[in-house]
Amino acid sequence: MNKNVNIIGAGLVGSLLSIYLAKKGYKVNIYERRPDMRKTKMSAGKSINLALSDRGWRGLEGVGIADDVRKIAIPMYGRFIHNRDGSTAFQPYGKKEQAIYSVSRAEINMKLMDLAEREAGVKIHFNERCTAVDRVKMEASFVNEENKSTTVSSSDLIFGADGAFAASRLNMQLNNDRFEYNQHYISAGYKELIIPPGEGGSFLMEKNALHIWPRGSFMMIALPNPDGNFTCTLFLPFEGEKSFEKLKTREDVTKFFNEEFPDAVPLMPTLLDDFFNNPTSSLVTVKCFPWVFDNKVALIGDAAHAIVPFFGQGMNCGFEDCVVLNELITKHNEDWNKILPEYQSLRKPDGDAIADLAIANFIEMRDKTADPKFLLQKKIEARFNEKYPDKWIPLYSMVTYSPHIRYSTALKEGARQEAIMQKIMAMPDIEKKWDSEEVEKEILKHI
Amino acid sequence: MNKNVNIIGAGLVGSLLSIYLAKKGYKVNIYERRPDMRKTKMSAGKSINLALSDRGWRGLEGVGIADDVRKIAIPMYGRFIHNRDGSTAFQPYGKKEQAIYSVSRAEINMKLMDLAEREAGVKIHFNERCTAVDRVKMEASFVNEENKSTTVSSSDLIFGADGAFAASRLNMQLNNDRFEYNQHYISAGYKELIIPPGEGGSFLMEKNALHIWPRGSFMMIALPNPDGNFTCTLFLPFEGEKSFEKLKTREDVTKFFNEEFPDAVPLMPTLLDDFFNNPTSSLVTVKCFPWVFDNKVALIGDAAHAIVPFFGQGMNCGFEDCVVLNELITKHNEDWNKILPEYQSLRKPDGDAIADLAIANFIEMRDKTADPKFLLQKKIEARFNEKYPDKWIPLYSMVTYSPHIRYSTALKEGARQEAIMQKIMAMPDIEKKWDSEEVEKEILKHI
Repeated sequence: MNKNVNIIGAGLVGSLLSIYLAKKGYKVNIYERRPDMRKTKMSAGKSINLALSDRGWRGLEGVGIADDVRKIAIPMYGRFIHNRDGSTAFQPYGKKEQAIYSVSRAEINMKLMDLAEREAGVKIHFNERCTAVDRVKMEASFVNEENKSTTVSSSDLIFGADGAFAASRLNMQLNNDRFEYNQHYISAGYKELIIPPGEGGSFLMEKNALHIWPRGSFMMIALPNPDGNFTCTLFLPFEGEKSFEKLKTREDVTKFFNEEFPDAVPLMPTLLDDFFNNPTSSLVTVKCFPWVFDNKVALIGDAAHAIVPFFGQGMNCGFEDCVVLNELITKHNEDWNKILPEYQSLRKPDGDAIADLAIANFIEMRDKTADPKFLLQKKIEARFNEKYPDKWIPLYSMVTYSPHIRYSTALKEGARQEAIMQKIMAMPDIEKKWDSEEVEKEILKHI
Repeated sequence: MNKNVNIIGAGLVGSLLSIYLAKKGYKVNIYERRPDMRKTKMSAGKSINLALSDRGWRGLEGVGIADDVRKIAIPMYGRFIHNRDGSTAFQPYGKKEQAIYSVSRAEINMKLMDLAEREAGVKIHFNERCTAVDRVKMEASFVNEENKSTTVSSSDLIFGADGAFAASRLNMQLNNDRFEYNQHYISAGYKELIIPPGEGGSFLMEKNALHIWPRGSFMMIALPNPDGNFTCTLFLPFEGEKSFEKLKTREDVTKFFNEEFPDAVPLMPTLLDDFFNNPTSSLVTVKCFPWVFDNKVALIGDAAHAIVPFFGQGMNCGFEDCVVLNELITKHNEDWNKILPEYQSLRKPDGDAIADLAIANFIEMRDKTADPKFLLQKKIEARFNEKYPDKWIPLYSMVTYSPHIRYSTALKEGARQEAIMQKIMAMPDIEKKWDSEEVEKEILKHI
């Protein structure tokens, strides 16, 4: 049996994976390019909040750390919509008790590193930049970013968990014939901003919600943090009429925010400094294949399937990779010649599906959450789901609260439901009879 | 004015580009990774024949070397189809005098290098592998593959002409945010084989044709060479029922060729040795964007748009890049801040279009050339084109003989024509009345 594993990257997925493997008795070395984040200060504008949902919780429960994380997570029960005219609306994410959880990426990553290092078999090496992966010799090479020393480490298995711009994946791209690779950037970028706490660490907006300022071609969102502040993210096209390129001066930004987000401006005292100090970042989708080489080297998490953040599934999907892999280790009794091919054939369609769903959800968040017709549709779906929970689970709920439903199934089911709902929404006077028996029967007819 | 240019790659496009630039008074250094091919022996199974057509001729005429190349080119006036049952058929490529020309990639490349070096301003440096392109400092770095010495060369402009797996493009991919990149391999690979000359250098098959053995999911083709031999290429899926993976032994190959290409086997005395000595190569399409960086660094040829070979347009498209660039240099009076953006905006849609056309033409060649219905359609189109040359140019002719029609226009026009022809082919008894006035009127109605 292959008991020595090298993992490239001590991010969320690499750290969690190491814990799963250690609990199966594997000896794991993790090589991380960055310094130990538990000892250094984060760079501004890169705080990043994530929305943890059921697939992610499942990953954490599998290694017994869900309760630990729950302490630093804030439940968000729905979308809190801020319209341009100052009016607001709350749109629940699902049933009453269903929520997604705001967590700090850094907090959860540090916790995972702590837990990983508590395992006897795990060692994390920091400042180690991966320069090569040799899948014939099964050697991974690293340069230490501090002292420039080189390390060549051999192991029985190698996991590339080094994120959207993975060095491990680049190595596979360059050294494997017929490697399918696609990187695509959406036309919007993002910038982090902040709404600080009120007096005594109080929340200045509804705490238990994900706030959205939907503006058609762009949007701002805000997620709560335990210390009372909100991390805001402005998603805006790089070029065009309303875009980052048009916001050059402090006057441009003031005018733009006053026009678009009037209710947020009074809550953002450092808006102008934040806007010009924090970077404008891009949003990439990466699809590639294969993820597995010689049944000894595998890509996992963002390294295999980087997605845009609009379904809040990047981390959740990566954690689910670990869950699936862990189940396959048990199922195939540690026969990696069976584990890795099945991991790849199971997860590749799901990675593709959540990538497409995430792009589609940008349009839903920035545009449709402000559309009365769309909201009515969601109400009809929620009502039908309540009465016929076996016949209809809304797409958002399938993705977010139903880890037993694969992303690829959710994508297909969602398209089928959308086709039915288009017929329903075309019924005359649907606004008046949306909760009638007639509409219910019509849906049942189409299912 | 920027008068110093570095070109990475002395392939077909890099060499031709250097001549165009030298004739405008530029000082050009070309850095080529390989040794000087004029002094070394080619590797077996990589002889490669190309089909030169009007866009390519235009590129050569622009620097006055078309006549030189014509001496080593063999016109092919149509497809010569070899059916499994031994029957054959000739399908003309266009009007009587229209042909594409078989040339050896190596021959034409060596000729272009000779001509480049004849220009006072051009110097080719061999064995120089590009390791970095710094677009801020405008420096390109190289390692000499023989003596391992490093060179850093600065210039006013840099062209990446280093092919489908361009080091220059990789540099742009890694160092530029929002670089769109897609590499896709078709499921088929290829292997070169040979039909040697008969006695006294005679051709054992029709000399002036491109031979095709269409077999549905795969095919073999053969192009004539001046010394009487034919370069054959087998295009076959890597995996599946009929595939490279199924051809493991000499018995497998013998049986496969006897079944599929019975009329070719007697002409291929070294078939088995060639099959196992020559490599099986893959077929990639690369699409990327941008092609131009800071109006100082640009990708050209396969480095910008690697395509599969089935429309015989890879070299022709690359030469057309040079023609367009040369026209823009004149048009904008050497203002590269205008030249390069227009080069990119003109050529990117054309590169995308020919990439898609090339993939579609694989299906046409391997499958439809053996389909009577398809052949009838081509006959109807040819007849209509003959009568109404202003109203209808068949897709193949637009791409191959009409350099004044952009690839992107050909793609759109071709799709429009195909929709019309599907209606025509659905007419009852079309086989009997294909050359009737009724059919002619019906086409006119739809145009």
